[in-house]
Amino acid sequence: MLIRQLDTIRASQRNVVTPGWESARMLLKDEGMGFSFHITTMYAGKELRMQYRNHLEAVFVLQGSGTIKNLATGEVHELRPGTLYALDEHDRHVVRPETDIVTACVFNPPVTGREVHDETGSYPADAAAAAE
Amino acid sequence: MLIRQLDTIRASQRNVVTPGWESARMLLKDEGMGFSFHITTMYAGKELRMQYRNHLEAVFVLQGSGTIKNLATGEVHELRPGTLYALDEHDRHVVRPETDIVTACVFNPPVTGREVHDETGSYPADAAAAAE
Repeated sequence: MLIRQLDTIRASQRNVVTPGWESARMLLKDEGMGFSFHITTMYAGKELRMQYRNHLEAVFVLQGSGTIKNLATGEVHELRPGTLYALDEHDRHVVRPETDIVTACVFNPPVTGREVHDETGSYPADAAAAAE
Repeated sequence: MLIRQLDTIRASQRNVVTPGWESARMLLKDEGMGFSFHITTMYAGKELRMQYRNHLEAVFVLQGSGTIKNLATGEVHELRPGTLYALDEHDRHVVRPETDIVTACVFNPPVTGREVHDETGSYPADAAAAAE
């Protein structure tokens, strides 16, 4: 059994901070759960354009509000506490937080550590997993 | 892209209610994410003895407080908002909620639907997956 505290993770190397968001990685690949689990905050007023070409991701909104746009269809959905979005087709998307949005995020396959988005808005594939 | 609202799920067949807990299954096996994602409330004053022999589970506490006991080691950990526990060894455990505890839960492999705990405190294995 593993026990993790959000405040401890936020004060550690497992907290990744970028200009648009920060993410406390509560569970990573090394924990062996087959997914990673992050508490991620997207900052108010940013426009976050992303596509996870190498991962599936589900995001559950805990606090805050904004919108997500599906760039394949043009559809815009409201984000508020209780909304979940799942990128089941590696969807290209833009999140526009009106306030800071705090979320619980799950990635499959698990993120390995300190990934940030590359120039395409993706996280890189896990080189170790690709070699398996 | 899938969009789900917690209040809609809670009013649907995807909300499973038992004497000790209730669980809104936001994502199940059929969504194809490779994990399931649930918002689960464990009720104040209950003693919930569980072991997921067929699944790995991570639980992040959103609201409420209580304790979790690892029955293999006897260790007791406090649960409060920001605590995550991960059952990475199919750990036998007891949760004792002091107040209602609201959690975000991730199961791997994904839960298929309306599972409740069997007499051993487990969810059954996914018969379809076992046959694959």
